[in-house]
Parts: sequence; structure tokens; C-alpha cells
Amino acid sequence: MNYIFTNILGTFILDEKLTIIDSLLFKSIEEYKNKETSEAKLNKKHNAKLLPKERLPQALLLFKEVKYYPDFYHKNLELTKEGLKQAVNEDNLVMQAIANINELDKISNTMTKRLREWYSLYYPELSEEIENHEKYVQMVLEQDRDPKTFGADLDTCDIEEMKLLAGRITSLYALRKQHELYLQKIMEKYCPNLLELAGATIAARLIELGKGLKHLALLPASTVQLLGAEKALFRHLKTGSRSPKYGVIINHPLIQNAKRDKRGKAARMLADKLSLCARLDYFKGEFKALNYKEELEAKLQ
Amino acid sequence: MNYIFTNILGTFILDEKLTIIDSLLFKSIEEYKNKETSEAKLNKKHNAKLLPKERLPQALLLFKEVKYYPDFYHKNLELTKEGLKQAVNEDNLVMQAIANINELDKISNTMTKRLREWYSLYYPELSEEIENHEKYVQMVLEQDRDPKTFGADLDTCDIEEMKLLAGRITSLYALRKQHELYLQKIMEKYCPNLLELAGATIAARLIELGKGLKHLALLPASTVQLLGAEKALFRHLKTGSRSPKYGVIINHPLIQNAKRDKRGKAARMLADKLSLCARLDYFKGEFKALNYKEELEAKLQ
Repeated sequence: MNYIFTNILGTFILDEKLTIIDSLLFKSIEEYKNKETSEAKLNKKHNAKLLPKERLPQALLLFKEVKYYPDFYHKNLELTKEGLKQAVNEDNLVMQAIANINELDKISNTMTKRLREWYSLYYPELSEEIENHEKYVQMVLEQDRDPKTFGADLDTCDIEEMKLLAGRITSLYALRKQHELYLQKIMEKYCPNLLELAGATIAARLIELGKGLKHLALLPASTVQLLGAEKALFRHLKTGSRSPKYGVIINHPLIQNAKRDKRGKAARMLADKLSLCARLDYFKGEFKALNYKEELEAKLQ
Repeated sequence: MNYIFTNILGTFILDEKLTIIDSLLFKSIEEYKNKETSEAKLNKKHNAKLLPKERLPQALLLFKEVKYYPDFYHKNLELTKEGLKQAVNEDNLVMQAIANINELDKISNTMTKRLREWYSLYYPELSEEIENHEKYVQMVLEQDRDPKTFGADLDTCDIEEMKLLAGRITSLYALRKQHELYLQKIMEKYCPNLLELAGATIAARLIELGKGLKHLALLPASTVQLLGAEKALFRHLKTGSRSPKYGVIINHPLIQNAKRDKRGKAARMLADKLSLCARLDYFKGEFKALNYKEELEAKLQ
């Protein structure tokens, strides 16, 4: 009786004593993945039985020979590489993009605060007048100062230096917007339902906090409701303070526009639908988010 | 006997009963600053005595009339404005610039770390290969990846997004260099000695930590030696841990290049000379920093 045995190197026919009597070596990883083909080919010739499990350890000894090592090494390397390459998916891209957006928000905040302090030597009234950071930076670049200002008369080269900084901050604001468009583009294909109902930023934060779309899809709605409120939740469990009602979804317009005493209810309903959206997206279901949205809007009026 | 009295509004001649019998009103703040002129003019006519201190409260009552209010208001405003304008000096510019440089260092660091994480989805080997942050960012922009990489095959639009980020980081590095040139330019005029001996970054940090050149010039050399090591100093005072030997001057080449056991001595000698430099600069003395530098280099060889 002959046995047939396949590993990463090829398909082998072994006799009763487990010596190799025939073989088909794989030239590439692709052939290994279609091992049924070579197994069928050899089986036609030898009509062999699958090697029984208890004889496997003995068969493996055949491949301890040094001559097999390079082939093992290269095939394994290739398999690992493929595995790694496929491990990167949209989840990673979404998480990186949203992490960058958050970082850019923080950075442009800090830099604008520095600009405010610096430019206020020259034109202190502007900083008091304009609260919005992005608007302020734009005004520094575009508007001359009021001649009645209390600010010091600085050299042009000092002002130019401040405007250079303002210019860089503007380009960071622009990059943030560009990143958001990019995020939107990935998510339109990857999770259209979640994107439609949650908006790009909240959807991405949910994927980030849920550690990927798959995991998010498997979470109960009540957990989705509280994603991002972990700190308040643990405080609640530890000290008995009030339990949080919402995590990152608090920024959603449906909750922002709800009356204060209806927000808990709104959060629960929204989280239910978001959870459904994540599942639809993960299992490549239909596009139902628009219906959900209308339904929620009607109920929360 | 007539009295002469001057306030922000003008110079007044008062009779024995303190009624105004003559006056010269100031049309601008400049005239107030040259009040001696108008006082001399009126004195020629009236030969009045300076109003004695004890009669001042009574004289001031004359100006409680509402008609004087607008003039008081505007003149005071102008004086305040001038005071504020003159309160801004090179100290402020230096401190703002160095604060910005420090912030930019932190920010480009954070952003490069984010870029490393993101771009490593595509080309993980590059991040391991190149430790220097600035060089890494440049390579992301300029070099194609090794085809044998373990990274995932991403769409061009994903890579483009990463390169956008890399581009912005590059421009932040450039801004940092530009700010340093600017700092150097201010300091060449303002504190040439300190700049020559300490270099732009350390000199600016010393001015920042010393709360201005004037205050820095008045500090003892031993304090200059420890500026920037306050945390370690207070720990030393509180817990008896080893006392610090140097603050920000530790980054100075004379200390960096000194042998480990000579560093304390080097720091003391450098701080002595830096303190002298700050005094020369504040009191507009000669340019001696080059001599000091040569002297120190010779002694520390």
C-alpha cells in the first residue's frame, strides 16, 4: 500500500516503509495552494491512500535533511509575506486616517494658540475679537491691523515671520480637510451604511474604538452606545457616579439636536441602528442606512 | 503769591485762593512730555512758585469738572498705549520665537511618528532602516519601496495621502530652520555676546528661562549654570538626591566635548562667561565673546 503526503515543498508518494518513491515538487507557492491538482495527478499513477495521522511523525523525519532547508525557508518566507500583506485592510487605513485627523486637530490648536500669543504683541485686539481659531489664522494672513491698536510697532521682518507660521497652520487645516475626504472615500466602499448614518468622523472613531469593523459588528448595541465613554463607565462602576449615556456618538446631530431629557433615549435608538449598519457593512448587506436615518428622524421629532 | 501746577491736561497758574488765572493746555502727549517748556513760558509772565504738596488735594478738586473728563480720558489712553507699545521689546520676540521652535520640534516629532506608523503598512522596512526622523520623511517622499518588502500593496490614492502628510512635515522642518535664522538675526543686534558664546538656541533658552535679558544679566553665574534644571534642583533640596551640575547649557559643545568628570568644572566656567556676556549685552558693552570662547577652549583642552 502506498501513501500520499503533501507539504509546502511538494506532493510525495511513500511506500509501506515510508521511503519516497515518487514526488511532484512545487515551483511556487501558487502550486502549493492548488495542491489538489498535483495530488490528483500522482494519485492517478499510484492510487495511494492518504497518510494516516499516526505515521505523520515518522514521515516528517524524511524532511530533516539539510537539502530541504533552503526550500522550506523561502516558501515559508513567501507565505508569511502574503499573510502579512493580506493582514492590512481597510480597518488599518481607517484607523490611521482618523488617528491622524485627531492629531492634526490637536496640533493646529496648539499652533494657533502660539500664533495668538505671538501676533498679539503686534495686534492684541484681533485675538479678542475673533474666537474661531481657523478664522483667526486667516485674518492674520489677510487683514491689516487697525491703526488705533495698542500693539507694538514691530519691524516688517517680525511680522513676516508670524505670517509664515500662520501660512503653515493654514496648510495643516487644509490637510485635515483632505484627510477627511480621503477617509470618506475609503468608507464609501468599505462601510457605506455606517458612513451614511454616522458621518465620516464618528464612523471612523467607532471603527477605531471597536478595533475594526468585524469586531464592531459583533458588539452589542449597548456597547456601541458607550464606545469612547470607557473612563466615565469605569468611574461609574468603581465609585457609583452616574452611568454615562453616550460615548463618541454624542457628537451626532440626532443627539445634539435632541432635547436634554430625550438624549439618553436618542442615544439608545441611534446605537441600535449603528450596530445594524456595522453588521450590514461587514456582511456586505444592502444599503439601508438612509431608511434608518429617516426612521430615527421621524421618531425623534 | 501765585502757584504753578502741571498735570496731563496742561500747565496752570493758580492764585492764593487756588482759582485758575492763566493756563497753557497741552494739545498732545508730546507737549506734556516737554512740560518744562510751557512751565518756563508761564513762569516768565507770572513768576509763580511750585504748588506746595499740602495744597495739592485742594488744587485737584478744580479738575473734577465734567468738561475735563474727555481730555483726561484721551490723554491717559494715549499714554497707556505708548507704555504698552514700549513694553514689547526684543525679549518678547526672542521668547516667542524660541517657544515656537520648541513647539515645532515636538510637533514634527509627533507627526513623524504617526507617518512612520501609517507608511509602515506599505513599507515597514524603511522605518527600521532609517532612525533619523527628518531623513525618514524625505525618503518617504523621494524613494520608491523595495519590491521585496513585506508591506501591503495599497492603492496609489492611499500612498498619495501619506505623501501629503510627509510634505507637510517637511515644511514644518523648514519653518523651524527659518525661525532659527530669524532668532539669530534678532540676537545679532540684541545680544551679540550671548549669541556668539552660547549659540542661538541656548542663548534664547537662557533669555526665556531668565525672564528677559535684563533679569538674566542680574542673575549670579551659579544660577545661570542651573537655569533649566529647576526640577532636579528642587528634588535635590527636598530629597537630598545629587545636586544638578547644569541646566540648558548641557547642550553646549564645550560641555558635550568635555570629559565626563570635567563637565561640572566646564559648566561652572562657561556659566561665568555667559553671565558676563549677558551683562555686556544688556549694558551695551563691547564684543568680547570671541575672546571668552578662545579662553574657555584653551582651558578646557
